[in-house]
Amino acid sequence: MIIIMEPGTSEDNIQRVVKTLEKHEFKVVLNRGEVMTVIAAIGDKRLFDPHSLGSLEGVREVKIIQEPYKLASREGQQEDTIITFDNGVKVGGLERPVIMAGPCSVEKDYQGLLDVAYAAKEMGCKFLRGGAFKPRTSPYDFQGLEEKALVFLARAREKTGLLVVTELMDSNDMPLFENYVDVIQIGARNMQNFALLKAVGKSTKPVLLKRGGAATIREFLLAAEYIMCNGNKNVILCERGIKSFDQSFTRNVLDISAIPVIKKLSHLPIIVDPSHATGRRYLIEPMSKAALISGAHGLIMEVHHDPDNASSDGAQSLSIPQFIEVAKRLNKLIGRIDYDNRMTKQELGIK
Amino acid sequence: MIIIMEPGTSEDNIQRVVKTLEKHEFKVVLNRGEVMTVIAAIGDKRLFDPHSLGSLEGVREVKIIQEPYKLASREGQQEDTIITFDNGVKVGGLERPVIMAGPCSVEKDYQGLLDVAYAAKEMGCKFLRGGAFKPRTSPYDFQGLEEKALVFLARAREKTGLLVVTELMDSNDMPLFENYVDVIQIGARNMQNFALLKAVGKSTKPVLLKRGGAATIREFLLAAEYIMCNGNKNVILCERGIKSFDQSFTRNVLDISAIPVIKKLSHLPIIVDPSHATGRRYLIEPMSKAALISGAHGLIMEVHHDPDNASSDGAQSLSIPQFIEVAKRLNKLIGRIDYDNRMTKQELGIK
Amino acid sequence: MIIIMEPGTSEDNIQRVVKTLEKHEFKVVLNRGEVMTVIAAIGDKRLFDPHSLGSLEGVREVKIIQEPYKLASREGQQEDTIITFDNGVKVGGLERPVIMAGPCSVEKDYQGLLDVAYAAKEMGCKFLRGGAFKPRTSPYDFQGLEEKALVFLARAREKTGLLVVTELMDSNDMPLFENYVDVIQIGARNMQNFALLKAVGKSTKPVLLKRGGAATIREFLLAAEYIMCNGNKNVILCERGIKSFDQSFTRNVLDISAIPVIKKLSHLPIIVDPSHATGRRYLIEPMSKAALISGAHGLIMEVHHDPDNASSDGAQSLSIPQFIEVAKRLNKLIGRIDYDNRMTKQELGIK
Amino acid sequence: MIIIMEPGTSEDNIQRVVKTLEKHEFKVVLNRGEVMTVIAAIGDKRLFDPHSLGSLEGVREVKIIQEPYKLASREGQQEDTIITFDNGVKVGGLERPVIMAGPCSVEKDYQGLLDVAYAAKEMGCKFLRGGAFKPRTSPYDFQGLEEKALVFLARAREKTGLLVVTELMDSNDMPLFENYVDVIQIGARNMQNFALLKAVGKSTKPVLLKRGGAATIREFLLAAEYIMCNGNKNVILCERGIKSFDQSFTRNVLDISAIPVIKKLSHLPIIVDPSHATGRRYLIEPMSKAALISGAHGLIMEVHHDPDNASSDGAQSLSIPQFIEVAKRLNKLIGRIDYDNRMTKQELGIK
Repeated sequence: MIIIMEPGTSEDNIQRVVKTLEKHEFKVVLNRGEVMTVIAAIGDKRLFDPHSLGSLEGVREVKIIQEPYKLASREGQQEDTIITFDNGVKVGGLERPVIMAGPCSVEKDYQGLLDVAYAAKEMGCKFLRGGAFKPRTSPYDFQGLEEKALVFLARAREKTGLLVVTELMDSNDMPLFENYVDVIQIGARNMQNFALLKAVGKSTKPVLLKRGGAATIREFLLAAEYIMCNGNKNVILCERGIKSFDQSFTRNVLDISAIPVIKKLSHLPIIVDPSHATGRRYLIEPMSKAALISGAHGLIMEVHHDPDNASSDGAQSLSIPQFIEVAKRLNKLIGRIDYDNRMTKQELGIK
Repeated sequence: MIIIMEPGTSEDNIQRVVKTLEKHEFKVVLNRGEVMTVIAAIGDKRLFDPHSLGSLEGVREVKIIQEPYKLASREGQQEDTIITFDNGVKVGGLERPVIMAGPCSVEKDYQGLLDVAYAAKEMGCKFLRGGAFKPRTSPYDFQGLEEKALVFLARAREKTGLLVVTELMDSNDMPLFENYVDVIQIGARNMQNFALLKAVGKSTKPVLLKRGGAATIREFLLAAEYIMCNGNKNVILCERGIKSFDQSFTRNVLDISAIPVIKKLSHLPIIVDPSHATGRRYLIEPMSKAALISGAHGLIMEVHHDPDNASSDGAQSLSIPQFIEVAKRLNKLIGRIDYDNRMTKQELGIK
Repeated sequence: MIIIMEPGTSEDNIQRVVKTLEKHEFKVVLNRGEVMTVIAAIGDKRLFDPHSLGSLEGVREVKIIQEPYKLASREGQQEDTIITFDNGVKVGGLERPVIMAGPCSVEKDYQGLLDVAYAAKEMGCKFLRGGAFKPRTSPYDFQGLEEKALVFLARAREKTGLLVVTELMDSNDMPLFENYVDVIQIGARNMQNFALLKAVGKSTKPVLLKRGGAATIREFLLAAEYIMCNGNKNVILCERGIKSFDQSFTRNVLDISAIPVIKKLSHLPIIVDPSHATGRRYLIEPMSKAALISGAHGLIMEVHHDPDNASSDGAQSLSIPQFIEVAKRLNKLIGRIDYDNRMTKQELGIK
Repeated sequence: MIIIMEPGTSEDNIQRVVKTLEKHEFKVVLNRGEVMTVIAAIGDKRLFDPHSLGSLEGVREVKIIQEPYKLASREGQQEDTIITFDNGVKVGGLERPVIMAGPCSVEKDYQGLLDVAYAAKEMGCKFLRGGAFKPRTSPYDFQGLEEKALVFLARAREKTGLLVVTELMDSNDMPLFENYVDVIQIGARNMQNFALLKAVGKSTKPVLLKRGGAATIREFLLAAEYIMCNGNKNVILCERGIKSFDQSFTRNVLDISAIPVIKKLSHLPIIVDPSHATGRRYLIEPMSKAALISGAHGLIMEVHHDPDNASSDGAQSLSIPQFIEVAKRLNKLIGRIDYDNRMTKQELGIK
């Protein structure tokens, strides 16, 4: 941690900072410049909230050097986290990127859900997504079928073998989720719902954590840290677009560079949601390709048996025939990436 | 609602949109331009998610005309909501603007809290704020004293008569809050935690709802709507700064214009938090004045008995002597505003 | 400047950075932490682009400590810059805040301009604003009357004694501006048009520099520095709103906190443009008050003799009668601020 | 254009809007809803600034339906613009994507520039980029070698046959650029320097127009329209990252989705600058691949013979050996895309 003092501040003010740091067991080095003094504090930030120094008189700025998350960081764990599911599916590292597909909301028409699930299975997907509890901006929009949707999803899993991914909004629903669900999704709006993060941190189910619409990468990884330091190390990160000043042609801006940035900072798998990121059906394919080629460990996308009559997000859902066309081209690209990864594994001597 | 069709789209596509609208009991008017056709749909949007039209072939854009919230809107209720507390304090409308003051977190030192509370009381404040459950970006930062803090706050209320404002993070803590708290705060990070909004919507306690750091005004009012349509009409809105591209000199950008905008759109009271908005002690006074003079119904600010050793947010807390100086000048300004409001009331014939 | 090295980087990499710094005559202090090494470089940054260090192997981050502008900074000049015009009007410091008023564009109707100018004069304004060369987002929108407008403005000055403020878009028009104009405005879109900044830096006319819609405060002050280091010290800064994710109810977000922040960082006068900031007529008054009470040295606002038929920005222009009402209330507020400032001057022993 | 009236506005107000529209030769259709009246105006917006309606009493909002640019739009021209250079190189449409490479700034070391140019040529590039006039945020940073740099670039062209791309900052330098340069670049900071746009609009040289750091796609295309409606149809657009709230790990956020969005809205070629977008060397390769696979017509990237000692932007420049490695992998990807494009051409019967 670096503490920059105001130009011309008094020696007393400087010594007060030094004492505070020493009280918290930091090693302190003073750099007295011509214009201002800079104090370097060496030690473990995690025991101490550095912003508290900002209130001391004469302090201009406190700059943190070490990233504040630990379990989620590459410094804490060099090797990629690879999450292995009961049926052998693996997510992360150099494993073949996965596609998660399904409707935005699970609806009354169970057969429609099943049709999507079979199409997903046919195209090589291993995960079925579908909203049971829906976070809707307006209280007057469709809020989800709740437990009934979970039952439908579980039934579709039985038929197809696909793993079920769905969003948890209330920690009181955890028992239901432990029963029915394979991957617990935390939505973008709840990325800093710390009560919920702690709750899923105590679960044994893998968690799919979506990046908040205005969350920095640091905040995103700290949200993952909340889950991990409560005991659950199986976190899959998901970039789904960030808010920008231009919302005329896309809902959000998909931050593709977050993929290689996060892969450098963290060992956790990271996937991309091109449907929510763009809000436009025609952008799903190009953004999926961009995500895969820049290193994403997977995709999660919306597919609906009848998008024109979907209860939510029809405009960003692929129909089943559209999905099949897109999936074919994505599988071709994934095949090439998978081939490259296998070559890399061979070089690295990984089995 | 206005549906804009792609230039040159087929008559079939136009008719499909018309039929969908008629099925949902909209009155439809077609405007056929030289370049493109525009469809106006007249009726109650609240029964229907207009974005679902976006998936129909040939639809370029769907534009909503009526604001999607109802109970929170001026159209639904012309007169200002004024919330009256047991001890006669009123918030909203032309009432004298209130100041809520207190530490970011309630800490072990009960006497410190009490000192702040007495200073607040002395300066004419009617509310004591203080965090019991703290939403911290890092899991390693101080998370609050929880129930113990609630007990301290309640004791300080007993001594001073100040009303207690504190943040709820988990609906499971509602019984505690019903016991100890006068105003339930929903923090910025939980503004779209819909499970929590529904829970406080069922309470009889007034709710202080903070605007999310990247929430639009529409999303903010829809969050209030979630609370209101669950039965609780006593919502106080709070602007606390929005995220921007420049974080060098302030934590957030305080959106002062949100005050008159929201007063035009909604009848709910709106207050301002200059501490979280700026993150800098020296900005609390000018931003408080700006908020009051542009029509805010109140302020909520951080005051600590020993900011240099605060568990959280010391840099944006006023010390007790600083607070007293600032409060004197704010009271002078509030006095003038109150005088103007009393004149206005007289003109309007309000008692 | 602080250079943070990657954890575990080699001693060679560290020494390469040290050598580069020493070559540029920095004094170097090494802080070897347990996790990483931090290098402090003490000396004059202005001779050296610190980002170039970012390319050296093993460098994680370069943090600049001293603000990169010099002539514009408080560190370079403690006392406020006060700009005095030929007719005795003063802008800056504790002087009475000024109001600049006039139409967005000067139009064919000279009498209309004159009516606005007389109203402005009557309300105590000292400056007439009006666009001659208009920066319009679309090439098909009205581009201004150019020299003809300058002639109109100069004629109105002759009649009323108001000083003329108008925007320069092309350095080739400088001779015209030297002739006709009292304050040369640089628009938000040209804030980083460095060729233009250099050109006005060579003029003797005061410059009104508007903040770019997505410019940080640092970039804003560096733009002022461009003008100042070319010889022209008379720069008036102007906050006019920044771009945000919410454009439904205001064009931009007026960054009121920028006023006290800039007054802390710089000695230059800073005024506010509530018309462009909000784009809504009804917001001009509350935002003007917020600006004044938080310390702005003045306002620049749009007033039109017939807003419904204005060539540009009618929706954010006041009509003459509206302006008179608003100006009366603002003058009352300015009177109070002026009184406080005179008291402060007395205390400070300033004449 | 759609004009939405305030709920309960008077018939007079409605008729005033209707008359204004009819005066400007719009066909008017009234939709009277239960809550509010909506007026549709059909006709050519380009003769009329619709925002002026916003000032009429009773108008709540004006919504524009047709995109305000014409020459740049797909509606105006269905077929892709393909720019053909003297030496036969083509940019746009289904042509093989191009790579433009070279140093951020041209420096004194001519041999270094030549080494980069030869490496670029060897890797199949057709364009050499290099800054002669540099837009630097600080006036104290290196400002470019100016004409000397142009001479160096022209000499490198003679030796290698590469076309020269460099940035114009001042219309007074146009004669120099007509002499030395093949593609005139307009930088992000000058995207709305309308005087400059008009000047290059009169040139016969192709223009590379960079998107402003906070420009919407609509503003970006309107900037292209400024060039085009002055006579120059050869505009290459360039996405180079937009400003966001998170600047910790990348300079900007590369808006990859802008590529397919712009290809839908416009026929102009669009390329990507991964160096300025990210500011980090290690992100150039993944972002280049993401750009190419989502449809970019080319890339422009920074390569320096000695990045550690570059005058500007060393941290985001590739060294020559790094460039060669990256270019090999990009060429492999471009080869596949080129193959697909040739197949598509065959299908479409294009020669």
